[in-house]
Amino acid sequence: MAEKKRVALVASKGTLDMAYALLIIASTAASMGWEVGIFFTFYGFDIVNKRKVHRLKVASLANPAAPLPVPNILGVIPGMTAVATWMMRRMMKKQNMPTVPELLDLCRKWGVRLFACSTTMGMMSIKDEDLVEGTECAGAAAFLEYASKAQMTLFI
Amino acid sequence: MAEKKRVALVASKGTLDMAYALLIIASTAASMGWEVGIFFTFYGFDIVNKRKVHRLKVASLANPAAPLPVPNILGVIPGMTAVATWMMRRMMKKQNMPTVPELLDLCRKWGVRLFACSTTMGMMSIKDEDLVEGTECAGAAAFLEYASKAQMTLFI
Amino acid sequence: MAEKKRVALVASKGTLDMAYALLIIASTAASMGWEVGIFFTFYGFDIVNKRKVHRLKVASLANPAAPLPVPNILGVIPGMTAVATWMMRRMMKKQNMPTVPELLDLCRKWGVRLFACSTTMGMMSIKDEDLVEGTECAGAAAFLEYASKAQMTLFI
Repeated sequence: MAEKKRVALVASKGTLDMAYALLIIASTAASMGWEVGIFFTFYGFDIVNKRKVHRLKVASLANPAAPLPVPNILGVIPGMTAVATWMMRRMMKKQNMPTVPELLDLCRKWGVRLFACSTTMGMMSIKDEDLVEGTECAGAAAFLEYASKAQMTLFI
Repeated sequence: MAEKKRVALVASKGTLDMAYALLIIASTAASMGWEVGIFFTFYGFDIVNKRKVHRLKVASLANPAAPLPVPNILGVIPGMTAVATWMMRRMMKKQNMPTVPELLDLCRKWGVRLFACSTTMGMMSIKDEDLVEGTECAGAAAFLEYASKAQMTLFI
Repeated sequence: MAEKKRVALVASKGTLDMAYALLIIASTAASMGWEVGIFFTFYGFDIVNKRKVHRLKVASLANPAAPLPVPNILGVIPGMTAVATWMMRRMMKKQNMPTVPELLDLCRKWGVRLFACSTTMGMMSIKDEDLVEGTECAGAAAFLEYASKAQMTLFI
């Protein structure tokens, strides 16, 4: 009998665009019946932070390929990050794409394992109760062991 | 008989530097006789956009390790992205490195498969005729199936 | 007898945060007895640059998820990159986390192989004597060959 396929993802960015890239890959793989595990580390932690996951942002600054390409001199104006974030949310909605918190819920329902990097938790003083339900605390060694049996590993 | 090696790459950034990183890995692997597939998604789409591939840029802003490290207060001046881009193009030329469109042509000649993420196409209203010849439209599931048989998977 | 596990990493970023992400993964895998190889390319080169490895920085700009989230209009002020860098160093110290040069030393002691991308060296006029001891010069083809035998490949 064929072994179940496994995908191991590292989530290191906390922006709206990279959260979408991560969760679309994770939920698609889970929907295909694969085992999926995500290791949240550094800024990626915001995606499993109960409060922050609802207000991820996309920067229009220093990203010459952004959907809203504004000159950097305008990008520093406080409202531009908000505009770029609003534009991406609207584009996603038009495509009937779930929101990031909805995608995360789908992932949990389909059995995606959410590993919270214990080093980052200490470093940023994050507590268990800050994290969405079902998140497991794990060290880098535990994740590496998990990932070494995956067909596919990505650092996002 | 040994199976052919396979590399599966996700291209999520549309800057000149990351386009080079992507296409150098892809073309080198293809030149070694490996199977190579690239899944273009989010900003990475600019690399297979007929018009945009000729004018990828590198930001000097918010990248303290850039080849042209300018203080952020200068980086917002409109011309600085252009200067950093010009510097990288010149450095590449001095090394007799092909341009990004030339590298992309090489990849296509050597059989690298170019998959355009169907979700991103809908989201950003990109049409088939905007893409370089030979690009195949694919969903995340099709790419995951392809990548699960690869020896090497990278998210760039 | 089971073969030794192998991790192949591409280091393409030269910021303090991504250097930590890279070296924590590399040193943890090495401490588990795995083979580890890192291919330094583009901005990642700063991590094996004798002088630069001591002064890696983290940008507070254009990173809406940074530990020090400042509005972009403030982020352009020259001192903000220094403040964000100082904050991350302090957070790491409080966790008894080694510095980046110390982690790099640990990696070398534990046999992590450091490959310097020959194309980047030419492009940025980097000389052998600029690099930390033990760094090997390698082309993309040599690294791909190495990585194709790894259980885990990440582009950081």
